[in-house]
Amino acid sequence: MRKINIGLLGCGTVGTGVAKILLENKDLISSRAGAELNLKYVADLDPGRDRGIKFGEGVFTGDAFKVVDDPETDIILEMIGGEKIAKDLILRAIKNGKQVVTANKALLASCGNEIFGAAAAKGVDVAYEASVGGCMPIIKTLRESLAGNHVRSMTGILNGTCNYILSKITDDGTTFESALSEAQAKGFAEADPTLDIEGHDTAHKLAILNAIAYGMEINLKDIYIEGISKITPLDIEFAKQFEYRIKLLAISKKRGDSVEARVHPTMIPCKNLLSNVNGSLNAVTISGDAVGDILLYGLGAGMMPTASAVISDTVDLARNILSGSVGRIPLLSFRMAGIRKIPVMPVDEISTHYYFRFAALDRPGVLSKISGILGNYGISLKSVHQKGRKTNGSVPIVMLSHLCKEADVKKALDEISRLDVVGTRPALIRIEDDDQED
Amino acid sequence: MRKINIGLLGCGTVGTGVAKILLENKDLISSRAGAELNLKYVADLDPGRDRGIKFGEGVFTGDAFKVVDDPETDIILEMIGGEKIAKDLILRAIKNGKQVVTANKALLASCGNEIFGAAAAKGVDVAYEASVGGCMPIIKTLRESLAGNHVRSMTGILNGTCNYILSKITDDGTTFESALSEAQAKGFAEADPTLDIEGHDTAHKLAILNAIAYGMEINLKDIYIEGISKITPLDIEFAKQFEYRIKLLAISKKRGDSVEARVHPTMIPCKNLLSNVNGSLNAVTISGDAVGDILLYGLGAGMMPTASAVISDTVDLARNILSGSVGRIPLLSFRMAGIRKIPVMPVDEISTHYYFRFAALDRPGVLSKISGILGNYGISLKSVHQKGRKTNGSVPIVMLSHLCKEADVKKALDEISRLDVVGTRPALIRIEDDDQED
Repeated sequence: MRKINIGLLGCGTVGTGVAKILLENKDLISSRAGAELNLKYVADLDPGRDRGIKFGEGVFTGDAFKVVDDPETDIILEMIGGEKIAKDLILRAIKNGKQVVTANKALLASCGNEIFGAAAAKGVDVAYEASVGGCMPIIKTLRESLAGNHVRSMTGILNGTCNYILSKITDDGTTFESALSEAQAKGFAEADPTLDIEGHDTAHKLAILNAIAYGMEINLKDIYIEGISKITPLDIEFAKQFEYRIKLLAISKKRGDSVEARVHPTMIPCKNLLSNVNGSLNAVTISGDAVGDILLYGLGAGMMPTASAVISDTVDLARNILSGSVGRIPLLSFRMAGIRKIPVMPVDEISTHYYFRFAALDRPGVLSKISGILGNYGISLKSVHQKGRKTNGSVPIVMLSHLCKEADVKKALDEISRLDVVGTRPALIRIEDDDQED
Repeated sequence: MRKINIGLLGCGTVGTGVAKILLENKDLISSRAGAELNLKYVADLDPGRDRGIKFGEGVFTGDAFKVVDDPETDIILEMIGGEKIAKDLILRAIKNGKQVVTANKALLASCGNEIFGAAAAKGVDVAYEASVGGCMPIIKTLRESLAGNHVRSMTGILNGTCNYILSKITDDGTTFESALSEAQAKGFAEADPTLDIEGHDTAHKLAILNAIAYGMEINLKDIYIEGISKITPLDIEFAKQFEYRIKLLAISKKRGDSVEARVHPTMIPCKNLLSNVNGSLNAVTISGDAVGDILLYGLGAGMMPTASAVISDTVDLARNILSGSVGRIPLLSFRMAGIRKIPVMPVDEISTHYYFRFAALDRPGVLSKISGILGNYGISLKSVHQKGRKTNGSVPIVMLSHLCKEADVKKALDEISRLDVVGTRPALIRIEDDDQED
């Protein structure tokens, strides 16, 4: 049986999982791949850490560039993360004609066009299933299973930390801060959780999915991003009353010759399967012109689920090497010549449904002033809810809108914020509800 | 751009959908596949039917064997269904060195070992994504995405007709008969719905999934099969009270050197995502040693979703032809040499939780007699419910058991059935509930 040599760069959480699967499930993988996947190198700067694995002599090294330059290495697994050194190593591996697997969404979202361009020019494969949604086969589904479909839209819960925090606030009524501390204590959230909770990690993943779904260049910078740090238990409570749940969603929709792409907390109906995806789980719904809606669901992070996706890519590349079919599937799902710069719509131009919450002084005429301004901007309301209970001397007034334009909403809220009877900036949460009538 | 010639056999519902996608999404498919997929032939015995498609001259033919024998045809799409003629055509296509796509689960479940054996010997691909779960990429996920995993178990809703009927009874309280009539009126159910409602169609699919999940020969005959025709609104009502829903599930579990494989109505907790899969939708949960649980969800039948899966296979095979990598992935997920005869456990040997409903005469001592017999067979009860309302002169007594062995349950129910205070044969529904304690 042919031996294919693997060079693993980075032996942190995911890297360790990859090494474990390669060693522990070696026979299973050989029987499926038709080749022996030999873990020839593991490169990491920390040789001392206990990983629960005994590597053979000469396997562990501190020099990742040696691994990438060794003519005997067939496939490079980049599990270092971060942008600078990982990028240098991937580009050098490509230059050396190696096949590459990476889980690095931040790098692909920012430098993917350059990396895939280099790989296409050199005629090598770069596989990246683990960069989005952990173990869910979302990249494979888009690149292969939906080959006959025009993708119309995608809606996903793509960050386990945010989903854990929102589920915790929803189910236990805790505050954002205590839910975050708990997520950190359980190892779901990083010490610096900014990338996760401010929505950037989700946007990285959406930028990658958009490219392969719609045949566009990777475009991170034009995605609208809003995190979950401003979500309050009060809004979650109101959401429940309307039979909604709040999730941090990645949403993209094909709109003629442009794409709507945004990441923000979103109210979705309780009967939507995504609203039942709780804790650190991920899920994504893809809508295509032939398939209708399909949904994938699974652990979006963690050592073994992410490592499983890396192994899936590695076996794919090994099968390509064995059958002499490197480059069999276009890197970004479409042939390079078919990839276009499709513009991402500015968020001001989108139209959707909204939840507003105003902290208004309990005086006569306040409701009329607020609704008057909304009306002036063409924002028509589906329902209005005012409850008697005061919070900090003001009364929450909640409104759900019919379909209206984001730009109009912003102008109206600016004007309402300037009213002396309205306290803090109104809360705004977008709603995705297919059944809502207009 | 290279042209790959497609011969479509059978232009009924799915075949028509396939032709539509090939013609309407031609540019999209070419851009992804890197080849022109040319619909060279459509073979069907009914030329007159209005399919809403205008075929070019010479495309439509009544002679399927001509298509299979034409040296210019590269890929054969068998969309005829049934076993006899479809099998002959597929074997002839293989003999002629064609690549084959089929959606024919009944044929693969009964003759798959022979067909895949012939394909392996000839060195051609037979792809069958559309045979299980319509548009859900279940075959691809098992054969490729989970390549590094030992699959531990699978649980699926794989028949849209049954799921539609059970959802209807659950949500609207209608009877089985009227739900079935409605499914037939809407075109979900066949005129002869036996294959669907008696669980055989689900078992066909499970036989295929078992083979590629566990590396075993296809084995349909040893799968335990029980349909939904005996499910009553009364049982569905009781299920609701225990926060369960009843679904027709395909269940398989790896048990040491054998496999548990069964199809039957099953009570599952409302918080299980599968219990929220309603109407004609399908879903399957796969549990692997690295991924944990993943779930796929989508339309399991219908013209376009099934056709989408056929196109996915066709593009895969076209990519193999283009890159000279036919046979790149083992037909049944494992190399032929690694496929074993893994025995399916007789249902008597399984252990699970049970729901029993007894129609007992309202007399003193009845409960004690029933529970005494259950106790004699080692069946311990989690809860007992007796409601005052009489049905046909008897009172329903409902019991939920702890984990117990099917063989013991059968013996106990036989003995209970012979009691003169018990009316009809007791109802038995198996429960899948991971959280249930024992």
